[in-house]
Amino acid sequence: MKITCLQENLKYSLNIAQNIIGRNLTLPILNNILLDTEDGRLKISSTNLEIGINTWTSGKIEKKGAITCPAKVLASFVNNLPNKKIEIEVKNNNLTLKCDNYKASLNCLSAEDFPIIPKIDEKPLIEIKNNILREALLGVVGSASLSESRPEITGVLFKFEKGELRLAATDSFRLAEKVIFEISKGSSESRSLIVPQKTIQEIVRVLAEKEGETKICLGVGQILFDMGDTQIISRLIEGQYPDYQQIIPKAFSTQVVLDRGELLSIIRAAAVFSNKTNNIKVFINDGDFEVLSQDPDLGENKSQIKTEVKGKKIEMNFNYRYLLDGLANIGTKQVFIGLNSDASPAVFKPAGDDSYVYLVMPIKSN
Amino acid sequence: MKITCLQENLKYSLNIAQNIIGRNLTLPILNNILLDTEDGRLKISSTNLEIGINTWTSGKIEKKGAITCPAKVLASFVNNLPNKKIEIEVKNNNLTLKCDNYKASLNCLSAEDFPIIPKIDEKPLIEIKNNILREALLGVVGSASLSESRPEITGVLFKFEKGELRLAATDSFRLAEKVIFEISKGSSESRSLIVPQKTIQEIVRVLAEKEGETKICLGVGQILFDMGDTQIISRLIEGQYPDYQQIIPKAFSTQVVLDRGELLSIIRAAAVFSNKTNNIKVFINDGDFEVLSQDPDLGENKSQIKTEVKGKKIEMNFNYRYLLDGLANIGTKQVFIGLNSDASPAVFKPAGDDSYVYLVMPIKSN
Repeated sequence: MKITCLQENLKYSLNIAQNIIGRNLTLPILNNILLDTEDGRLKISSTNLEIGINTWTSGKIEKKGAITCPAKVLASFVNNLPNKKIEIEVKNNNLTLKCDNYKASLNCLSAEDFPIIPKIDEKPLIEIKNNILREALLGVVGSASLSESRPEITGVLFKFEKGELRLAATDSFRLAEKVIFEISKGSSESRSLIVPQKTIQEIVRVLAEKEGETKICLGVGQILFDMGDTQIISRLIEGQYPDYQQIIPKAFSTQVVLDRGELLSIIRAAAVFSNKTNNIKVFINDGDFEVLSQDPDLGENKSQIKTEVKGKKIEMNFNYRYLLDGLANIGTKQVFIGLNSDASPAVFKPAGDDSYVYLVMPIKSN
Repeated sequence: MKITCLQENLKYSLNIAQNIIGRNLTLPILNNILLDTEDGRLKISSTNLEIGINTWTSGKIEKKGAITCPAKVLASFVNNLPNKKIEIEVKNNNLTLKCDNYKASLNCLSAEDFPIIPKIDEKPLIEIKNNILREALLGVVGSASLSESRPEITGVLFKFEKGELRLAATDSFRLAEKVIFEISKGSSESRSLIVPQKTIQEIVRVLAEKEGETKICLGVGQILFDMGDTQIISRLIEGQYPDYQQIIPKAFSTQVVLDRGELLSIIRAAAVFSNKTNNIKVFINDGDFEVLSQDPDLGENKSQIKTEVKGKKIEMNFNYRYLLDGLANIGTKQVFIGLNSDASPAVFKPAGDDSYVYLVMPIKSN
């Protein structure tokens, strides 16, 4: 194997591939990446047995071949090089890399020992613009559960239905749902599946500043996100996603629309006095949205926003962290809040946009 | 006590004062700051019994008084407020704070219980421009020892002599020395004292973007850094600072001047292959400055800079972290390196500037 490529291109591709690689002591080859020549390009692959990444970069292939070498070492070394031509040559399980006045030699393992990353040759189920997909995933991924006690809610629900894609995530304390209507190409097939949170985080990372479209294809127990020069293949989570839609209220006895920045400020101010329980109180009355918190040792505080309130007055308790998380997912200047009782979920939405909803369960007051 | 001040001013002063406050469980009043009215201004004080900070901010004093309240809570709350007028009122050990639509009430303790921060009324020993003092302290503070086994080298040496100030710090693996010649006002008194590293870090933090001059005054076992609207008072470290000057070589058998950026790059590249020992090898020969490293599991690398070398060829081993630390303290484009043998310290200096020197002990080769 002998290839020449630009430092900038190799650095970009290595950084995409190496992120899922940890420190695997039982199966050391998982600390490696696979370098391969394919159709006149360099193909770089990595896997943690749950997620696999393939990414291609342009270069001059002088001699075909394949090898696996330590991912973190190669990526760190290449990151430090000047943006010049890199020559890579492999002989007897040894990779030599030359760039300007830098030279390195890496101990490698045979490409044959590298785990197989599943291939999915099915036709795409759907095609979505990268920026739309990324924004939608960012709005829900943080609400997935981190606890393995209910594996089915540790992932993000993908529900393909009537040419739309519905995404949802919940940890049973809060829930986020986003519907993508802007599908570039799609089948009308109805499917429902659960993608691990870590996979979604990788997709969000790779999609950053990447133009174009992503094709989503399904295999047996696997999903493929094809972003052109990068593919992410992931296992799916088995199980039945909870039927969450029934708990999203459709009508509200109290409604208010607030400036997002002002709301963030008064929640953050209240957070200062809630450092043991994260508990803050929201009190809505005629023309007044108040946030209160208190700590017996420290003191208490109260902040308010004067605003028009539709419906009846209400008092509820929340974990302020869930409120801040939800507001971070809402990009509009105005936020709609809909409430019913101090024991039923509060609804947060971007004002005038019904494609996104964020639900928070209140804390029961004693 | 009743005062009015601007959010921006109060925020700035609280952030200066609260940084030294940790979580003290045995003496809870140390988690508080002291608010006091003095000469028509608000004085904010904090102490951890080793370092004391006094800082003054302008405001309208309607009623004099003094109180202590939880530092972190007050600072976090004020940080979140809009930049508007803040009204503070104290009644019965309770502080009420109002700003726009925000209101808080803090549980306080009596000002009488707050530890006394020592006063130093001596005439200043020296006056130095803030930017010069800050730069000089930054160049040495990172080299002080973190181990308490030899307390006298956990601080920075201040040596006042012949109208100059000589600063030095070492952890016995490396040593940094800076001489400040640009003294605005100073006595010719000779004094030598050791200031704790944490105090120096606080001074560096407070001096950031602060114009003007700092006066240094000495008390009994105490030192005062008077920066105008902020004072830092610290205990001194007792003991005799090692007579380090004898180990700084004055002549070199090998000398080289290198581009700082290129040198940083080749050291960082070598660091990738030294992740168990931090050991890298420097090899200097006719016209060639080489850095090499190897790891039996990963591989090896070699990078070089073509340059003029004065003197004989030499091979030495270093902990690369000490080299990177030293180069971070050198701001010039060119770096001078002077060497004598593989068992004697290497000298790094900004090219053409003899006021700063950074010494690194080599690792003995087997």
